[in-house]
Amino acid sequence: MKVKVATKILEANDRIALENRKIFDHAGVFVVNLMSGPGAGKTSLLEKTLSGRKDLRIGVIEGDIAGSDDAERVEKFGAPVVQINTGGACHLDSNMIADVLGDLPLGEMDVLFIENVGNLVCPAEFKVGEDMKVMLLSIAEGHDKPLKYPLMFQESSALILNKIDLLPHTDVDIGKIKRDALSLNPKLKIFEVSCRTGQGIEAWVDWLGEQLKKR
Amino acid sequence: MKVKVATKILEANDRIALENRKIFDHAGVFVVNLMSGPGAGKTSLLEKTLSGRKDLRIGVIEGDIAGSDDAERVEKFGAPVVQINTGGACHLDSNMIADVLGDLPLGEMDVLFIENVGNLVCPAEFKVGEDMKVMLLSIAEGHDKPLKYPLMFQESSALILNKIDLLPHTDVDIGKIKRDALSLNPKLKIFEVSCRTGQGIEAWVDWLGEQLKKR
Repeated sequence: MKVKVATKILEANDRIALENRKIFDHAGVFVVNLMSGPGAGKTSLLEKTLSGRKDLRIGVIEGDIAGSDDAERVEKFGAPVVQINTGGACHLDSNMIADVLGDLPLGEMDVLFIENVGNLVCPAEFKVGEDMKVMLLSIAEGHDKPLKYPLMFQESSALILNKIDLLPHTDVDIGKIKRDALSLNPKLKIFEVSCRTGQGIEAWVDWLGEQLKKR
Repeated sequence: MKVKVATKILEANDRIALENRKIFDHAGVFVVNLMSGPGAGKTSLLEKTLSGRKDLRIGVIEGDIAGSDDAERVEKFGAPVVQINTGGACHLDSNMIADVLGDLPLGEMDVLFIENVGNLVCPAEFKVGEDMKVMLLSIAEGHDKPLKYPLMFQESSALILNKIDLLPHTDVDIGKIKRDALSLNPKLKIFEVSCRTGQGIEAWVDWLGEQLKKR
């Protein structure tokens, strides 16, 4: 019975996600669902992406349990941004996104980033109408994450290993992260970056631009 | 309607949590629900606690989406341990705990640690029958976490700020973490530790021992 209910929730979610996707396609906006555990650096990556690709018109939907800190950070770069506070919910779903689409100038945007709630589990289960999922992992979280949270690694097109500047101060085996992530998802594109120092950001924003052209 | 279902789930959870609690009390075991985001160091803290308090008989329930790495790490210290794989669920609930209680020698234990799934959101909502909740935060996750994930800070008796050895290599304001955490929960006991170097572990295990005596 429990499983039945859960399936229905996911079915309803996928149906609304498809409707969102149609709206995005009609507006010609490329949508990235950006996911990670708490504090891996999603907003810092958006800041670096906004300043690294001023040629792109980028909008943002910020998802958080509470607060609007991230929206304020992104707004400083002049990006149109909407904050969603989920209350208790540990992920964004397609209906939450559908509710705010009228508040964004989709027709004047090239890319829409949807920054999900900081959580390595449920965000990977709920489509929101995105063209692709991108995940971040802070290397400070350790090398056991791919095998412990496999779904997000399987669902993502790109894995951004952030806080690479901390690597010399940890016992983390970054080779194991990459091997295990690729064993779960051989097509995964992996970037090593530091949003703090700027290392590796250029490769990421270049690749993002290529994905837009491919559409 | 949605809210109604969610309330029912939490009501059912609390009822079973109370039953678990009676079993724990009858066995005379003190139960700690250990929570954090992914990779904050819950298992490392358990390793340090097991080696720092050999005078205590400590058992462990490990909660993970997938895998049994953490259970294997803890088992090396001779602790009785049970692994729960939740599949897709992003938290442990009281029924999952009730299901495995028969597999642990509760009468021969002083403390039972329940290591929850790595997630700063839902674990704080689901009681499992614990005497107290303890949360970890890796300082590498940044100083905005208390205000973004308030419930876990409000629900916990102690906050363990781990990876303190990384602090000089970050821009994190640990004073802000402590101020915001205490504004959410003025009774919160805060420890600064490094499970990697051992710094601060003694204060934590001493305090744990005092909580046992207070029961």
